[in-house]
Amino acid sequence: MIKAKGIAAQAAKAPLGPFDFERRDPKDHDVVIDIKFCGICHSDIHTVRDEWGAARYPIVPGHEIAGVVRAIGPKVTNFEVGDHVGVGCFVDSCRECTNCKQDLDNYCLNGMNSTYNGFEKDGKTPTQGGYSDVIVVDENYVLRIPKSLPLDKAAPLLCAGITVYSPLMHWKAGPGKKVGVVGLGGLGHMAVKIARAMGAEVTVLSHSDKKKEDALRMGAHHFISSSDKGAFQNRAGSFDLIINTVSSADLNLATYFALLKLDATLVSVGAPDKPLSIHPISLIMQRRNYAGSLIGSIKETQEMLDFCAKHNITPEIEMVKADQVNEAYERVLKSDVRYRFVIDIATV
Amino acid sequence: MIKAKGIAAQAAKAPLGPFDFERRDPKDHDVVIDIKFCGICHSDIHTVRDEWGAARYPIVPGHEIAGVVRAIGPKVTNFEVGDHVGVGCFVDSCRECTNCKQDLDNYCLNGMNSTYNGFEKDGKTPTQGGYSDVIVVDENYVLRIPKSLPLDKAAPLLCAGITVYSPLMHWKAGPGKKVGVVGLGGLGHMAVKIARAMGAEVTVLSHSDKKKEDALRMGAHHFISSSDKGAFQNRAGSFDLIINTVSSADLNLATYFALLKLDATLVSVGAPDKPLSIHPISLIMQRRNYAGSLIGSIKETQEMLDFCAKHNITPEIEMVKADQVNEAYERVLKSDVRYRFVIDIATV
Repeated sequence: MIKAKGIAAQAAKAPLGPFDFERRDPKDHDVVIDIKFCGICHSDIHTVRDEWGAARYPIVPGHEIAGVVRAIGPKVTNFEVGDHVGVGCFVDSCRECTNCKQDLDNYCLNGMNSTYNGFEKDGKTPTQGGYSDVIVVDENYVLRIPKSLPLDKAAPLLCAGITVYSPLMHWKAGPGKKVGVVGLGGLGHMAVKIARAMGAEVTVLSHSDKKKEDALRMGAHHFISSSDKGAFQNRAGSFDLIINTVSSADLNLATYFALLKLDATLVSVGAPDKPLSIHPISLIMQRRNYAGSLIGSIKETQEMLDFCAKHNITPEIEMVKADQVNEAYERVLKSDVRYRFVIDIATV
Repeated sequence: MIKAKGIAAQAAKAPLGPFDFERRDPKDHDVVIDIKFCGICHSDIHTVRDEWGAARYPIVPGHEIAGVVRAIGPKVTNFEVGDHVGVGCFVDSCRECTNCKQDLDNYCLNGMNSTYNGFEKDGKTPTQGGYSDVIVVDENYVLRIPKSLPLDKAAPLLCAGITVYSPLMHWKAGPGKKVGVVGLGGLGHMAVKIARAMGAEVTVLSHSDKKKEDALRMGAHHFISSSDKGAFQNRAGSFDLIINTVSSADLNLATYFALLKLDATLVSVGAPDKPLSIHPISLIMQRRNYAGSLIGSIKETQEMLDFCAKHNITPEIEMVKADQVNEAYERVLKSDVRYRFVIDIATV
């Protein structure tokens, strides 16, 4: 076994603290990764606080993992020692279902193996995430991080990046398309940069006027404050696609649906802890769609990393040490982060 | 002016009663139609009782109109006296917006002219519907009813038929596709017949076990009772498309979303008076879609009538006289109709 040290939650209401544990020895197709950086995702907080249910302690969270290959199993062909690599939200899947066979392993019908608070392929060994110094992952679920992307900034791409890239690709953001991004946080700011690079006309819709300058600097063509009813009226029926990155159940979706053209789609990528209130008439009137999207496949995540390298897209991050993570969580909950926290794993 | 007699609501809480009024003299492109039959749609009840707001009395409801051409304006080219014709939910539209120009006049961006409780093209003359003996409509908004379709049974196709035909076509029901129909009422029973004729594998999902026999007789391959949790679990992730014809806000949509495959869609065609509660996670997990659909275009309505004639599809109706309409409304509200009331206009 390989010794690992990380930080873990021992209970729903406990702060994260140091935790020593073990990783498996590499099997034929395994890659042993020295983790250098790990992003902090809102899902980490939901999970360790048991807000989504099904938490099994201790939990080492973290699924925005960037590191360097330390060793490889004897049959690994895709990676070599020293490669820059990443791990995202899942570390395996059934590989047999219709979705897995179509390279849509993020929608694995037998349940993909979550990077943390899940189980390994054996169905019983708990998975532990990236707030730790080493991880062992099957090469088919390891991403190659192009060397032109700095590892610290690459980390958040593994969840925040792919979660918005996937729906932008699926619903065909690109030249001639008007794309709205609701919320300018970790996911929203990536959506702006990626949608802009895809060639779309990008509008940020945010409750915080203070973010207007940042939004425009990141590449948004327009900014609409949630409280500006006139702007909402002027842009009614004009959007081809809206990516909703806000996971609050208090969002009045009807005002966003009204912005959509005929046959256009609003996609939620975040799951609030309460249901939303939706009046079907908002969708009926222009045959609008409301959809959800869950991260992205391994294949798509690799495409996204290559796309970001090609277009020189990185998140805006604030580096924290391991002993600052609990404080960082509080700041995430207050939206007090510009725009993603990344843990320097050397401090674990 | 042309004398018309019908039945109208004079106030939100008043029963419908006899009402004499006038129709315009035919203009160049107008068709004067002797109405023979008019279906009773749940929308009629919502509107005359002012449950959707914006009711302007008196209201002669009715937008499932079937009749015979009495006269034509001098420039009418599409119709001749004696033709069997129909009128649906709208009698005109702006003809200039992007949607109208794409033959999607049902989604007219300037608001199509509703057959009743709306305004004529002049923007001020109230429209009155089909619970009356004559109507005058521009030929571009008149449908041709194939002679093989009996006029009484053709009437409900103009709303109930097109409302389900349009989403079945748009979301590509057909061979190899598994289509669910929620609710076996006026719209639901048409959805079953039409989806079956399109070649889809059809399942009815109904709260009423008593409708199983009817559902299978109408062409459904399967029937699932809403209370049969086992059946819902067995069919999880198996549907390509679900048409929701139930407009109650109490429907637990999550149980229906779970039936959808990856990328599949549930379409609501009815508008409840309260919003629905939807948890985005239901959509996120398999990138599912929730959509709305509003009747259909004039072009599509003609296609639907021709399709129904070709496949010998008609609704199952119960004929009522004009003085039975108030009683029929009460029965509609109790779902006590197999499966659509049609008014014999000769009794008005």
